[in-house]
Amino acid sequence: MYAKQLRPLALLLALLAMATLLPGCTTLRGTGDMGVVIERAAGSLQIIETSQRTALARVEGLGDLSHASVVYSRDERYAFIFGRDGGLSRVDILAGKVTHRIMQSGNSIGGAISQDGSLVAVSNYEPGGVRIFDAATLAPVAEIPAEYGGGLLSKVVGLVDAPGQRFVFSLFDAGEIWVADMRTPQTPVITKFRDIGRQPYDALLSPDGRYYIAGLFGEDGLAMLDLWHPERGVERILANYGRGEEKLPVYKMPHLEGWAMAGGYAFLPAVGRHEVLVVRLSDWQEAGRIAVHGQPVFVMARPDGRQVWVNFAHPRNDTVQVIDSESLQLINTLTPGRAVLHMEFTPRGEQVWISLRDENRIAIIDTESQRTVSTLQADKPSGIFFTSRAHQSGL
Amino acid sequence: MYAKQLRPLALLLALLAMATLLPGCTTLRGTGDMGVVIERAAGSLQIIETSQRTALARVEGLGDLSHASVVYSRDERYAFIFGRDGGLSRVDILAGKVTHRIMQSGNSIGGAISQDGSLVAVSNYEPGGVRIFDAATLAPVAEIPAEYGGGLLSKVVGLVDAPGQRFVFSLFDAGEIWVADMRTPQTPVITKFRDIGRQPYDALLSPDGRYYIAGLFGEDGLAMLDLWHPERGVERILANYGRGEEKLPVYKMPHLEGWAMAGGYAFLPAVGRHEVLVVRLSDWQEAGRIAVHGQPVFVMARPDGRQVWVNFAHPRNDTVQVIDSESLQLINTLTPGRAVLHMEFTPRGEQVWISLRDENRIAIIDTESQRTVSTLQADKPSGIFFTSRAHQSGL
Repeated sequence: MYAKQLRPLALLLALLAMATLLPGCTTLRGTGDMGVVIERAAGSLQIIETSQRTALARVEGLGDLSHASVVYSRDERYAFIFGRDGGLSRVDILAGKVTHRIMQSGNSIGGAISQDGSLVAVSNYEPGGVRIFDAATLAPVAEIPAEYGGGLLSKVVGLVDAPGQRFVFSLFDAGEIWVADMRTPQTPVITKFRDIGRQPYDALLSPDGRYYIAGLFGEDGLAMLDLWHPERGVERILANYGRGEEKLPVYKMPHLEGWAMAGGYAFLPAVGRHEVLVVRLSDWQEAGRIAVHGQPVFVMARPDGRQVWVNFAHPRNDTVQVIDSESLQLINTLTPGRAVLHMEFTPRGEQVWISLRDENRIAIIDTESQRTVSTLQADKPSGIFFTSRAHQSGL
Repeated sequence: MYAKQLRPLALLLALLAMATLLPGCTTLRGTGDMGVVIERAAGSLQIIETSQRTALARVEGLGDLSHASVVYSRDERYAFIFGRDGGLSRVDILAGKVTHRIMQSGNSIGGAISQDGSLVAVSNYEPGGVRIFDAATLAPVAEIPAEYGGGLLSKVVGLVDAPGQRFVFSLFDAGEIWVADMRTPQTPVITKFRDIGRQPYDALLSPDGRYYIAGLFGEDGLAMLDLWHPERGVERILANYGRGEEKLPVYKMPHLEGWAMAGGYAFLPAVGRHEVLVVRLSDWQEAGRIAVHGQPVFVMARPDGRQVWVNFAHPRNDTVQVIDSESLQLINTLTPGRAVLHMEFTPRGEQVWISLRDENRIAIIDTESQRTVSTLQADKPSGIFFTSRAHQSGL
């Protein structure tokens, strides 16, 4: 009698238990409002969403995530995590787990995903070069050793994807920029630009995918390649951009990805100075300087270009400033918390998420009122990456 | 004995059957590469994805979809379909079904979703005005009757969302542009701009969300509002833009959404002429005209701005032309099939999808080689809308 009564309940429990284990039974949801937050010290990441502003899951075991960066598959489901230790992880952000993980080199710095989403590339310090993997399986597809000077291998930096199924990157030790055409994936066609300047250390792609600009550690100025006209070669711009004659102490080389472009101007972090440089995009000449709180690290435009947000290097890294992109005036100074490491805007710009490493939290700020509207706990958060990056070249 | 053997199998079948019925057990997938294709005559839409280039599901019963348009929730899961008959449908593109549907007016033309994703607005001809709904439930939130001239109601056109949680729209009969600040949703704060020109018939928002530009049916020229400076009022630009003195027969008023902006220029469909107009964005002066195959309808920039694609009004609507945005030369003329109605680029620009109404199919074209790489069957397809629109203002 007891057994008979139990059976329907047991069956129901079994059904429910099994249903949650079946593939395809994780929570169904859109991925357009999702993202990940790097927890550097723990080697983990949090999966978050920006509609209710919640954390959805934590994924662990991702290795050394100092200076880690992230790109997304074109369906915004898979995050590719580039670790400092050469680890490359593919995380399913819907299921909240690692689907593939490889150690692809001994020491790497950043990566990119091809325009069509089929290839993931990683730039390596050791051994110097670029390795290219199938985005679905992380199986190796091609390798581009960064050879120069008769057999030496250069560290590779500033790797981005560009329209036309290309990857573009810089050779730190060789002073070169290479463009890899990946239309035949197994046999990349490489175009090399030599003598572009001493020690390119990072690079950015303009939002339209046209200009590749590398910062130089070994001298002042920047190296610019117009990808619409590679036949014109690499041009030097902003001859005074850099550490300059005085060789000021530089607490952190600013990120070039952080350049804002808005309203016909680029806003650049000055190197070693408490300034944001304003440069006319029409002729790449300096149009002004804005005095700011500290040495800028990221100088980022809100997606509509109306505001430019700036964070700063240690020891002045508890502050964020907001610049009006039209008047070029500072309009606000915020102190969201200790150790502001990164900022990420929602794609339509209504929120900005700011990682506060030493507070173990993320501040979520309304960009119009510039007030903190929510807070999320995170373990020493650094980079924040929203899925909308899937739709943009060069990020 | 037989019954005992059967039980495990029956249990398994029951489990599998139940699992597929449980909520959350539809196929798990990212939504960043999805979209919908309007099937106008049938009142249905197809849900598609651009990675494998397949149709995933058809959703029927959406009413009169002539001139229908679509916006997406910020998570890229829900499509809001604005029907010509006043129908507003909310479609779950993961589940492939309508979650909510209302008849919100007798006659409507287009809609928008607010910057934060919480509100959906519809512009109505009858009764003239804008109705605003909760994006999660389609429950009514606010109503803005388009009153003018002592109690008359104007048809409303050219409704877009803009940064700052605003909706902007034009009153066809009144010759006015209104800006609705929705920060307090139940009580919109309206700013009205009067005497902006006769019979605004459509409008666009510049990609950065700054300029709202309305086309005028009743006279030549365009009305432009700088949303960064509403205090400056509405300005008239391009005094010669329109049907002009000769009053050429106009087979179809071109869509203003179709304006391309690239490389410091806007590319505009001329009205009634076989020309694309080139306008300098710095001063809104005409910089040239490009002779094309017919009366242009959509003039759309590839996302990187390198190419501008143009389709044409009946009877020359079997052709698409490609313009080089830098040299301003025609670089290709394609004839993908009869009745080219719409074009949509994938967000990184490697593909363009073209609806061929009279061929009952979609042509998927590689934008670099400009060759058709796939074809999808569809029932008299018209508008194509990818989920990446969720991340952009004004679309």
